[in-house]
Amino acid sequence: MKKYKLSFSLLVFVLLIYSCSEQTTKYGDPLPSWNDGATKQSIVDFVNEVTDESSPNFVKPADRIATFDNDGTLWSEQPFYFQFQFAFDRVKEMSVDHPEWKDNPLFKAALENDMKTVMKSGMKGLMEVIMTTHAGMTTEEFEQVVKEWINTAKHPKTNKLYKEMVFQPMLELLDYLRANDFKTYIVSGGGIEFMRPWTEEVYGIPPEQVIGSSIKVKYEMTDKGPVLKRLPEVDFFDDKEEKPVAIHKFIGKRPIAAFGNSDGDLQMLQWTAATPGGGQAGEGKRLMLYVHHTDAEREWAYDRESHIGGLNKGLDEANENGWTVVDMKNDWKKIYPWSE
Amino acid sequence: MKKYKLSFSLLVFVLLIYSCSEQTTKYGDPLPSWNDGATKQSIVDFVNEVTDESSPNFVKPADRIATFDNDGTLWSEQPFYFQFQFAFDRVKEMSVDHPEWKDNPLFKAALENDMKTVMKSGMKGLMEVIMTTHAGMTTEEFEQVVKEWINTAKHPKTNKLYKEMVFQPMLELLDYLRANDFKTYIVSGGGIEFMRPWTEEVYGIPPEQVIGSSIKVKYEMTDKGPVLKRLPEVDFFDDKEEKPVAIHKFIGKRPIAAFGNSDGDLQMLQWTAATPGGGQAGEGKRLMLYVHHTDAEREWAYDRESHIGGLNKGLDEANENGWTVVDMKNDWKKIYPWSE
Repeated sequence: MKKYKLSFSLLVFVLLIYSCSEQTTKYGDPLPSWNDGATKQSIVDFVNEVTDESSPNFVKPADRIATFDNDGTLWSEQPFYFQFQFAFDRVKEMSVDHPEWKDNPLFKAALENDMKTVMKSGMKGLMEVIMTTHAGMTTEEFEQVVKEWINTAKHPKTNKLYKEMVFQPMLELLDYLRANDFKTYIVSGGGIEFMRPWTEEVYGIPPEQVIGSSIKVKYEMTDKGPVLKRLPEVDFFDDKEEKPVAIHKFIGKRPIAAFGNSDGDLQMLQWTAATPGGGQAGEGKRLMLYVHHTDAEREWAYDRESHIGGLNKGLDEANENGWTVVDMKNDWKKIYPWSE
Repeated sequence: MKKYKLSFSLLVFVLLIYSCSEQTTKYGDPLPSWNDGATKQSIVDFVNEVTDESSPNFVKPADRIATFDNDGTLWSEQPFYFQFQFAFDRVKEMSVDHPEWKDNPLFKAALENDMKTVMKSGMKGLMEVIMTTHAGMTTEEFEQVVKEWINTAKHPKTNKLYKEMVFQPMLELLDYLRANDFKTYIVSGGGIEFMRPWTEEVYGIPPEQVIGSSIKVKYEMTDKGPVLKRLPEVDFFDDKEEKPVAIHKFIGKRPIAAFGNSDGDLQMLQWTAATPGGGQAGEGKRLMLYVHHTDAEREWAYDRESHIGGLNKGLDEANENGWTVVDMKNDWKKIYPWSE
């Protein structure tokens, strides 16, 4: 009987150990694709601090706002912004009804996936391609078009779906923040209606937490009921100085954490770093993080001189202010969910 | 001993009855300030239906979006929109630094609370008063100004704080919907930054769920850090056709319930009623509700001819389409939280 009791105690002990070790595996490291080191530690320290009720830096859940850029921060953006490829693919699809495009240098270039020529046409040409492919239909029709594309279009280099070109470490970071009662938002220069149809599935971010650039829409009553018609006119370009403006308009609260990868995100990070009422990073703890593309082999390497996702002034400010800079090559064990 | 057992059973029985009856009081009627009848029933039926997993009209929690107009729907709006009174009070406050206003007919009228004269100056005059009193400061400074006003300014008729002029039955409705996993939004013609500082306290609606009219703001870096400066320029007027536009932009989902009181809310109700893809109220159950101001004694009575909160076309469409119309006088037991 005594022996039995001992075995039972042993069993309990073993079960305890087992359940603890499982916890370590399952809950112990919320960021398994991040290498241990200062970068990862700065994230974990921040989260621990703002969620610790006994800390002077405690932030109540309702104010735990985290904003993420998308292109180059949550998914790749090379060889050029994926939404441009979407526009080019639309040109191809729509060209059936536009035989005249073969004689138009701009649309001819788009048809041939010749980004260089389209870029040479400057902002005017680019906007013409965007407006032609993104407007002139209802919001519901556009949503369908985006859904079809995102579920079929593949990246030329990896041959993976574009929606699979997302960064595994950032997916873990999104989950980790949400598990700690953060509300995660996208604040991107990309089209708001280009992102919303798939961000919930891919990032766990619902439509109402996606902010982006937009074209104007108009309410129209048709004989089938009301529709919102997309107009070929810019409504809002969500980049640089406009990111804090959009955050203020859509959320009405200041983020306590912001994540970007380019100079287009600099003002969002400045706005997050600043103490309301003036003064830099005085009250409360904040997390400002830049993803630095340093991995030419597993992803791409670019920063100060890049025509896409340029990171120049932002890199200097990050260094000056002690913001977190992710060295993709050394800080990330894994780039994509499907990569080794 | 047997007697003791019986008393004990009796005690348990009494406790059970007591706890059940308490439940009836506490949870049994989620809308105690609503008189029983068709109006109340239409709300309860709708909520029961969309939250019943076995119903073909079941809607998953993430899609339970409910949008509320504010002026005249959640709080009173007579003798004129409360935000106008806020603007007039600001004119008074600011007049110390503007002695020249005494010779300006428009600002003189505002100083004397003479709404009639200000209204006569048309949209141009009204906008001048609004811009003068709402712009030219940072977003944080404006927030402070609003907070001070909302916590002190009193309604001329009731002598209650404006924030106490909210409708008790609508507060119950907001709670009831949220208890059933609805996300409640304000979609108002009122200023987004005029509402956000107090909607959480008063309605339980956080800043990120408040949509309204806005003026432009500009990001500026000062030596105290970045600020958002309010500019005297209209950004968005959230009324009529623009309400569905704003809902689409801010939420990216279609409401399944919408609440208003004027023709300014008609398109929001139409948009909610319509089945995506065309066709009126085909798929799924929706709740479109108009608050009809019929109570001259306890509140105000006005509709088709009113210069504020006019309800004309909307009343006809509501009747034609079988939308719910609240007869304030007969459907509401109580108007304000503090009234008898």
